[in-house]
Amino acid sequence: MKKLFLSVLVAVLGLTHAFPQSKTYLQWQTGYHKTLNIQPEKWLPSTVPGAVQLDVMLGENYKQPYWFGNNFEQFIWMEDQYFTYRTSFAKPVLKEGQKVYFHSKGIDYQFIIYLNGEKIFEQEGMFTYVDIDLTDRLKAQNELKITLFPVPTVPGSGNTSASYRENARKSVKPAVSYGWDWHPRLITRGIWDETCLEVRNASFIRSVWVKYNLDEKLQNAKLQAVIDGVSLNGTSYAWTMKSPDGKIVLSQKGVFNSDQPIIEVQLKDIKLWWPNGYGKQNLYTSTMELMKNNEVADLSEAKIGFRTIRLIMSEGAWVEPVLFPKTRSVAPATFQVNGKVIFAKGSNWVHPEIFMGLANRTTYERFVKLAKEANMNIFRIWGGGVTNKEAFFDLCDEYGILVWQEFPLACNLYPDEQPYLKVLEQEATSIIKRVRKHACLALWCGGNELFNNWSGMTEQSLPLRLLNKLCYELDPQTPFNYTSPLFGMGHGHYVFSDTANGGEVFQWMSKASNTAYTEFGVPGVANLDVLKAMMPANELFPPKTGTSWETHHAFGVWGENRWLELPFLEDYFGKMNNIEDLVVYSQLSQCEGYKCIFEEARRQKPYCGMAINWDFQEPWPCAANNSLINYPSNPKPAYYHVSKSLRPVLASARVPKFRWEAGDTFSCELFLLNDTFNAIPAGKMTAKLVYDGNQEMTFYTWNFDSTDGSKNIAGPTASVVMPVMKQNLFKLVLQVSGRPDLTSEYTFVYRGKEVVNVKPDSKYLAGIFE
Amino acid sequence: MKKLFLSVLVAVLGLTHAFPQSKTYLQWQTGYHKTLNIQPEKWLPSTVPGAVQLDVMLGENYKQPYWFGNNFEQFIWMEDQYFTYRTSFAKPVLKEGQKVYFHSKGIDYQFIIYLNGEKIFEQEGMFTYVDIDLTDRLKAQNELKITLFPVPTVPGSGNTSASYRENARKSVKPAVSYGWDWHPRLITRGIWDETCLEVRNASFIRSVWVKYNLDEKLQNAKLQAVIDGVSLNGTSYAWTMKSPDGKIVLSQKGVFNSDQPIIEVQLKDIKLWWPNGYGKQNLYTSTMELMKNNEVADLSEAKIGFRTIRLIMSEGAWVEPVLFPKTRSVAPATFQVNGKVIFAKGSNWVHPEIFMGLANRTTYERFVKLAKEANMNIFRIWGGGVTNKEAFFDLCDEYGILVWQEFPLACNLYPDEQPYLKVLEQEATSIIKRVRKHACLALWCGGNELFNNWSGMTEQSLPLRLLNKLCYELDPQTPFNYTSPLFGMGHGHYVFSDTANGGEVFQWMSKASNTAYTEFGVPGVANLDVLKAMMPANELFPPKTGTSWETHHAFGVWGENRWLELPFLEDYFGKMNNIEDLVVYSQLSQCEGYKCIFEEARRQKPYCGMAINWDFQEPWPCAANNSLINYPSNPKPAYYHVSKSLRPVLASARVPKFRWEAGDTFSCELFLLNDTFNAIPAGKMTAKLVYDGNQEMTFYTWNFDSTDGSKNIAGPTASVVMPVMKQNLFKLVLQVSGRPDLTSEYTFVYRGKEVVNVKPDSKYLAGIFE
Repeated sequence: MKKLFLSVLVAVLGLTHAFPQSKTYLQWQTGYHKTLNIQPEKWLPSTVPGAVQLDVMLGENYKQPYWFGNNFEQFIWMEDQYFTYRTSFAKPVLKEGQKVYFHSKGIDYQFIIYLNGEKIFEQEGMFTYVDIDLTDRLKAQNELKITLFPVPTVPGSGNTSASYRENARKSVKPAVSYGWDWHPRLITRGIWDETCLEVRNASFIRSVWVKYNLDEKLQNAKLQAVIDGVSLNGTSYAWTMKSPDGKIVLSQKGVFNSDQPIIEVQLKDIKLWWPNGYGKQNLYTSTMELMKNNEVADLSEAKIGFRTIRLIMSEGAWVEPVLFPKTRSVAPATFQVNGKVIFAKGSNWVHPEIFMGLANRTTYERFVKLAKEANMNIFRIWGGGVTNKEAFFDLCDEYGILVWQEFPLACNLYPDEQPYLKVLEQEATSIIKRVRKHACLALWCGGNELFNNWSGMTEQSLPLRLLNKLCYELDPQTPFNYTSPLFGMGHGHYVFSDTANGGEVFQWMSKASNTAYTEFGVPGVANLDVLKAMMPANELFPPKTGTSWETHHAFGVWGENRWLELPFLEDYFGKMNNIEDLVVYSQLSQCEGYKCIFEEARRQKPYCGMAINWDFQEPWPCAANNSLINYPSNPKPAYYHVSKSLRPVLASARVPKFRWEAGDTFSCELFLLNDTFNAIPAGKMTAKLVYDGNQEMTFYTWNFDSTDGSKNIAGPTASVVMPVMKQNLFKLVLQVSGRPDLTSEYTFVYRGKEVVNVKPDSKYLAGIFE
Repeated sequence: MKKLFLSVLVAVLGLTHAFPQSKTYLQWQTGYHKTLNIQPEKWLPSTVPGAVQLDVMLGENYKQPYWFGNNFEQFIWMEDQYFTYRTSFAKPVLKEGQKVYFHSKGIDYQFIIYLNGEKIFEQEGMFTYVDIDLTDRLKAQNELKITLFPVPTVPGSGNTSASYRENARKSVKPAVSYGWDWHPRLITRGIWDETCLEVRNASFIRSVWVKYNLDEKLQNAKLQAVIDGVSLNGTSYAWTMKSPDGKIVLSQKGVFNSDQPIIEVQLKDIKLWWPNGYGKQNLYTSTMELMKNNEVADLSEAKIGFRTIRLIMSEGAWVEPVLFPKTRSVAPATFQVNGKVIFAKGSNWVHPEIFMGLANRTTYERFVKLAKEANMNIFRIWGGGVTNKEAFFDLCDEYGILVWQEFPLACNLYPDEQPYLKVLEQEATSIIKRVRKHACLALWCGGNELFNNWSGMTEQSLPLRLLNKLCYELDPQTPFNYTSPLFGMGHGHYVFSDTANGGEVFQWMSKASNTAYTEFGVPGVANLDVLKAMMPANELFPPKTGTSWETHHAFGVWGENRWLELPFLEDYFGKMNNIEDLVVYSQLSQCEGYKCIFEEARRQKPYCGMAINWDFQEPWPCAANNSLINYPSNPKPAYYHVSKSLRPVLASARVPKFRWEAGDTFSCELFLLNDTFNAIPAGKMTAKLVYDGNQEMTFYTWNFDSTDGSKNIAGPTASVVMPVMKQNLFKLVLQVSGRPDLTSEYTFVYRGKEVVNVKPDSKYLAGIFE
């Protein structure tokens, strides 16, 4: 064994969740090796949390950034290598009864831990925290090693970009890193979340889960603090709860009678937690202090949001089916929060970094804040990706974003086999126990598209029945679905126009009748600055296969032309002469396509209960993609337009098509959409066409009645023979008298003789309406 | 307390499952009382097993039989009464270490047990065996009492015949006895299964479950005998297994090392168990002997059938859905047994007696044998009824009838409430542990039509998630469905013709496209002798509302005319002039309607995997009903015709309608249906019309190719201009050269000028084809 460098000990005071304990973040090195029991030939400095790929990239001068061009291919050789982390440290000075724990919130994926050459722990699974009492094994000077196994694969799996994910089908490793239509094949490994040595007192708290049952009026609650700890029996505690405005509303002292005690109390006059757009995100602060010799021996703090959440049948869904032989009615797909139906609108969340070791609260907060500002109230955490770190759920609690949390299963036939079921049980149990504490948690879901033919699972699949069982046992009050979509819910489409699927989004979406649209997308090219950053300048235009355009998913995804959709763009907007044309027309189609789907889903309320697009962000820069936000966090124009479509109240139009010909009669069905709990007074809506820069033609006025809270109003169809236009783009503008905040604008394509091509202006790209 | 009569002790030797122990069947009395803690005013002799209603009927000279006319109404006053059973007995003489148990296999429904005035046990639930060690409490002379609570009800439930079942929605009391469209309101209570005192040795076996895992080739198995017992630790055992032909294939001796030991062995060259029509019902005999001082201290014997069973997607089902937005694919609804797809054909089982205390092995065997003789291979044990006694499952093992076992939930919104969930967990656990041992068990199912609007449950309902969890834990190898129908499966229709549903069964059924038809029916009037037995002679004809016709479900079910369907009968067959006309034409429509559905479902194979009609038998005589067999066990003509449609191989025709007009072109699509694993050689099928008694017109010959096992052959459409007929009924006869066993016959209605009404003959009524 080579001589170890002297490790630098960095001791910091523990934060919220471990008041009196000290944490020591160790300095690590990484090396790779071909078989389990040999040592690496060299050791590279390591960043923890991080990923082994990043350590090698920095230590061996790989091309950077890893997301540029085809740099990701540098890492493929690592897949079948072992990696070992090592660190060394002196035994901390301990007071009486204190212990030293090695604690890690995430090691990706299968690993063995050695202390001073002795194997002390092994685990398969990146979501179960590692927490090992080292005290009695420590010498004065110690070496800790973590050896990672090669990435999990399944012999016989496909080796194409579309089938390589099958290698993930016997593990709880998120499938996405094996390659997806918006993700390169880059299979992460390493220590990816907070990892340190912790000195703890003899008695300490592992976790506190404040369960509650609200009474029927949602005014008062029975609380149970369910505590897990070490040597708690006989120690004193002080439990306090502060209301959202900082007042102490609960103060209870006592002595624990077990190491897993449950304390029950009543709490009155509860201020409820609401999702964004429906009320405040009231959060109480629970503090559990462990007292020993009149000193605080440990402290556990948590935010509690009180709410009920159910998944119920939407209005009209029980009426079906009508004729015999009758099949079942659709699955419930409408959320009821605190007894009131809400319309769930939001986005599919994919991990915001390929290397989730790089993601922290700051990363998460950018996105959660953007979601709130876009009038969203839900994220579906897609099962192909990585289950988020704790900070994500804290933020969703704070910003009012509901979380539909999927387990790490996606687009694969996960097996009815014991080795897999055992790891799944361990990982799912860890995830449930961690996440169930959060007010934002709205739904557990087995995973993505498991009941479709590209996965091949059914309700007989044991992995899904196991997940039902675990959620039932550990968190029965939170809804559980086997997968998405279930019967009645819809996924797709993912492009603006597809003749094999009924044409434009304007046509197929208005014919659809789903209880929830939980994936749908319209692709858009990346922002110009993002494109320039991701590829060599000489590849930028024209976009070609075999360049970064292809490795960054603009070509060869689901056929030749996705996600760029160049034939569609040139059919609708003429030849793309430069990169600026391409970006702006592609983004225009994304803006208008997304507005169409989101608003149509809302128009189909109350039968429809959700609109959740594919997807919010991306973990690396995609040249073209359905995302609303480019990597790392640059909103595309569609983000701003979607924000408009998701306003709580707005004027809206169902329009039969996107492309209009000279002489057509333009028509649209008018709606006033209202997702708030408040009534909207009667008013006047006008519809006008705006064309050729400043030409306006107001062609309809609708005097609408007042409406109740949460109710839309469907209005008349307004139509007008189109004027002769000189420019290829025109707008439909809907305005409500006295309510400029309800104005909506839609841009369409006009085709006629001698029409000049124009581009949308900066106001349009920023989603600013008149 | 009144003086007790002297009980007569009847001691018999225990049978198979309790070799060396003695059983004592006690003599009981019954009485009723208005509140819990008072004594009955009088005691009546009681029959055990039986029902309190029967004891009162006999003891107080009620009108008999209880199923005649409206005699069932005599019992309604009992619903809110308490009932108490009492018996007395001397303490048995015990050898050293022996104990006395009170054992009951079923007490319906909620009760308290008192020994010598002291409360020793209480239970809610009729399916959990009672097993109480009385030894230390016994005096020389003892009194045992069982007090039954009033029938469970739910305040605020409906009080109409269609809504009274809501009273069952917070209990695990089968809903059917609250009244159904073929069942009177007659809510049973009492000791309904074997009940006795048992003397047991100190060490005894409670249960042995022989689990197994077959290897991939289904040749060899790993066996685990999972044993539950008392004081087994340290006792010797001898485990033997005999093959179906009586050879000893396993003999193992040892010493138990716990009271819940598991013994593992390998068994080679397994003879598989097959459902009826697909192979033999090979059953092994497992004998577990408990040895003490070289004597057999206890013995447990069981029949084991080795097979695998899965619920898989049918051919073609994964292709759907085609267009975006895509919902999920349908639920799997095809059984695969021992690795081979089978077509599940059979009937919905309802309890064969209102008072299931009257049912025993003889009762069951009549029906199971009839099912086998009708070429059936499955019973769906409908969730509204009573879970059967042990003998039923033994018989299904022996006769090769698969059992789709539902839990006692049907057509109600069972609540997400702890008191209900607790009883459900207890009852379901008992049922699962008892039934999982049987080769016949094919499917666990939460209950009937729970995902339709008349129930209002969804996959979020905690009772169903609990059942899923219990089945996963206790019997993961058996498929589990939440309910029937699931997505893709169909229930209904239940009549021959319904214009609101697309007309005749001939029309709506050929348009249907379901993966499984798990309920469908065509009503028929009861056999004439059954009609005469169930009602006063003066009510027999014409059938009228307000008479036994109505109380026995011929009127006022789902509207005015069901199940008699008189307007339909008179439209198709002319005025019903006497009871003989009515019976024969109604039964004719039932025969032809059922043949149409069963054969059409088979023609839709392989997309369709099941045809299970509503229903097989009935628990009391119905004047008109969808059943194939009248109470108590009289087959209707439809039973024989269904038997023909379920032959493993037959000629079959899809015919567009039942009623033909003079001058019509008669047409039919020809099929050869093959459910066997064997290929069918090429051959010749002819189609002929037979009319006016002996007139024949052969109009088509189809030379069909050979086909593989389990594959149907779809042939051409044969058509012919109809000859002028003189009689109102004619037949289509299909014949295959050299295979008279494949002949099929269908009778149709002909309408033309001067047509004479004739009736089908006795050969027709007996289902005898040419």
